[in-house]
Amino acid sequence: MSNTDSFLKKWHQAVQTGDMELLHSIIAEDASLLSPAFWKPRVGRDKVAMVLKAVSDTFQELTYTKEWVDGNELILEFNTRVGDKTIKGIDRITLNDNGLLTEIEVLIRPMNGLTALAAALDDKLKALMA
Amino acid sequence: MSNTDSFLKKWHQAVQTGDMELLHSIIAEDASLLSPAFWKPRVGRDKVAMVLKAVSDTFQELTYTKEWVDGNELILEFNTRVGDKTIKGIDRITLNDNGLLTEIEVLIRPMNGLTALAAALDDKLKALMA
Repeated sequence: MSNTDSFLKKWHQAVQTGDMELLHSIIAEDASLLSPAFWKPRVGRDKVAMVLKAVSDTFQELTYTKEWVDGNELILEFNTRVGDKTIKGIDRITLNDNGLLTEIEVLIRPMNGLTALAAALDDKLKALMA
Repeated sequence: MSNTDSFLKKWHQAVQTGDMELLHSIIAEDASLLSPAFWKPRVGRDKVAMVLKAVSDTFQELTYTKEWVDGNELILEFNTRVGDKTIKGIDRITLNDNGLLTEIEVLIRPMNGLTALAAALDDKLKALMA
């Protein structure tokens, strides 16, 4: 199985089950997360995993609909919901040569979905870091 | 040249030059545009072309950085700026069997860039429709 196929299999399993150990195992130590809300990246495996877990706990009925692969650079398209707001999103993921996630950038639309996600995440991340 | 290559060549030329005739020539009559700000699509060649023109007039230093192609479904990644806000964006484009754009969905981050774009576009589109 290629690095990419192996990564994608584990990614979907980790997102579906919330298995933090599995999630940690596919993220590079120096990974960055670029959120839909803020410009400044979050850096480091623990922070990236924590935010991804908070996001996947916030998304309701998360469904991945399509993927594009170009070498180590992946696009995953998804539909989801936060409260009563329907959301369309894209994960733009770069893998390193070992097949680990080294960057993930998340883009979502529309604006009211982004606002709802940012508000829900803010509460969750404050609680996690308290 | 494949439908996709031919579309992409004309797309980049139309966006760079603001050539509305060329832009119209690559959009299907029943095309939809899904904006980063609002859920509800804009439907029809004229509306889609008008919004795309307003967006490309608003974006400063627009640079396409990468593309992913899967049959008729394309992902174009870009960097741009609106005023002092740096923006990262993705165009998710579907072509019909004739190689014409039948759907374009635009996702951008971060939130302050989206807010700046929505405000600038609101003014431009009101002026266009006045």
